[in-house]
Amino acid sequence: MQIPEVIVNGTQGDQLSSLDRGLLYGDGLFETIAVKQGKLQHWEDHLERLKQGCDALGLQGLNVESLEKDAHQLVSSDPNLKCVIKIIITRGVGGRGYKPTTQALTRIVQRFSWPEYPASFIKTGVKVTHCKFRLSKQSRLAKIKHLNRLEQVLARSEWDNEYQDGLVCDLDNNVIEATSNNVFFHLDNTLVTPDLAQCGVAGVMRKKVIEYCHANDIELVIRDVKQSEIKQIQAMFLCNSINGIWPVSSYCERKLSKTAIIDQLVAEFNS
Amino acid sequence: MQIPEVIVNGTQGDQLSSLDRGLLYGDGLFETIAVKQGKLQHWEDHLERLKQGCDALGLQGLNVESLEKDAHQLVSSDPNLKCVIKIIITRGVGGRGYKPTTQALTRIVQRFSWPEYPASFIKTGVKVTHCKFRLSKQSRLAKIKHLNRLEQVLARSEWDNEYQDGLVCDLDNNVIEATSNNVFFHLDNTLVTPDLAQCGVAGVMRKKVIEYCHANDIELVIRDVKQSEIKQIQAMFLCNSINGIWPVSSYCERKLSKTAIIDQLVAEFNS
Repeated sequence: MQIPEVIVNGTQGDQLSSLDRGLLYGDGLFETIAVKQGKLQHWEDHLERLKQGCDALGLQGLNVESLEKDAHQLVSSDPNLKCVIKIIITRGVGGRGYKPTTQALTRIVQRFSWPEYPASFIKTGVKVTHCKFRLSKQSRLAKIKHLNRLEQVLARSEWDNEYQDGLVCDLDNNVIEATSNNVFFHLDNTLVTPDLAQCGVAGVMRKKVIEYCHANDIELVIRDVKQSEIKQIQAMFLCNSINGIWPVSSYCERKLSKTAIIDQLVAEFNS
Repeated sequence: MQIPEVIVNGTQGDQLSSLDRGLLYGDGLFETIAVKQGKLQHWEDHLERLKQGCDALGLQGLNVESLEKDAHQLVSSDPNLKCVIKIIITRGVGGRGYKPTTQALTRIVQRFSWPEYPASFIKTGVKVTHCKFRLSKQSRLAKIKHLNRLEQVLARSEWDNEYQDGLVCDLDNNVIEATSNNVFFHLDNTLVTPDLAQCGVAGVMRKKVIEYCHANDIELVIRDVKQSEIKQIQAMFLCNSINGIWPVSSYCERKLSKTAIIDQLVAEFNS
C-alpha cells in the first residue's frame, strides 16, 4: 500500500490520539471524494451529507473553511491530479464514557492514489454476489456516513476478489445496498432504488443519479425492494463517488444486460 | 481530564495512525478492567470475552502475552494502585475499503485514574432514567464489546448528570441494558436479566453475577424482558466491571427498594 498524505487538524502527519472518540466509539463521520483534474468532485453534495451527519450525531463546530483549506492543500499541487480525498470528522478527544464531550472536533484529511480498475468494469460491467450478512435497522443512523462500519466489514468478508461487490439485505429481506455502492434496478421498465429510511448509506452518486433522472424525465421510484424481486430485474447498476456508474454484468452468476438508460448514465457520470 | 498513560503496540505514547481500521470503521474491540491493589480484576473473564470478540469479527493473531506485558507495565509500579485499564484491539492499519486486511492487529493499553463516586451509589443506590433511543438488532455483533458504539453515545446523550445511567430497549420494546451497565431485575421473587442474543454487551460483571447465583442457589432467569414488565419489579440493580453492583434507588423518579439478594451481591462484589 502506498502511504497516503494526511493532515490532522491542519497539521501534516497521520498520527492522532488513541483517546479520540472516533477510535473509542466510532463517534464520527467520513466522506470519500473523487478528485479529477485537481478538483474535488461534487464537493457541495459531500459537504451537505457531512452536515446532515453532524446534525444526526449532535456534532457541533464543523469548521468548513479549515476543511476546505486542508483538502485544497492536498490537491492543489497538480492541476492534472486524479486521486481520492477521504475526510474524517470525529467528536474529538475524550476520556472514558459514552457521554458526548464538548472538546473540539477532530478533522482528518487523507489523500489516496486513484484506484485504477479495468476498463471492462464500466464497459461491460462488474460481477456482483449476494451477502449472507444482514443489516440491522436503525433509523437514527441510516443514510449518514458514520464511522460504525462493522456491518460492512463483516459483509465484505464473505468473498475475496472474485466479485466487485455484494448486495446486502436487511433483516426483513429488503435489498438495501452493496457493501460500498448504492444499487439501482431496472424493473418493469422503471428504475428502482431502495428506500434507506432504516439502514444504508445515502451516497452522493446515488443523489446525483436521482437528480439526473428527475431532470431528464427518467422514471425512478424509491421504495422497499424485496430480495425475491431481483429475479425479475432486467438490469442493475452500482454507483458511488469514486467509481461513478458500474453496470452489473452478472448477479450471483446470472448474466444481466445493460439498458439504454444505464449507457446514458455511464456517459453522464463516467466521462 | 487527567492525561492517561498509554502504550500502543508495546511502545509508550498515545498516538496511532489515522489509517487504523479501528478509527476508519470501528473495526475492533475493547475491554475495561478494574485494577485493585495493583491487580487486574477478572482478567481471565475479560480475556475470554476479547477472544470471543476476535472470533466474531475474524480478528486473527491476538498476542495475549504482549497484552499482559503491556497491562502489567502500566500497573506494576504500585502494589496499592487502584485504577482502570482499558484495552483496545483493532484489525490494524489498512487502506481504503471494508475488506479485512491481513496486517498485524493494533494493541492499545490505556491507564485511567479510578472514578471516585459517592459512597451512596452503593449504599442507597443510583438514579436511573429511560432512554428514548432504541437499539438495533444484530445477532452477529451482540454480546461482544466492539468499537461501534454510536448507539450508546446517542442513548447517553439524552441526559446530563442527573441520572447515573439509563435503560435502553430494542425496537421491539425489550429492555436490553443500561448505556454502560448490564441490568438485573427482582421480579416475582426471582432475579431476571435480559437475554442478549440480538443486542447488548454481555458484561464481565454480569457473567460473575450469573455464576455467583448459580453457585449459591439464587434463582436467576435469562430471558426477554418487556418494558411493560418494569412497573411490576420489586428491585433493580446495574453492574459493570468498574462499578461492581449499583443498587437502583429510583427508575424514572419511581422509588425502588433494595432486596436482601442485592445486599448480598454488593457485599460479594463491592468489598
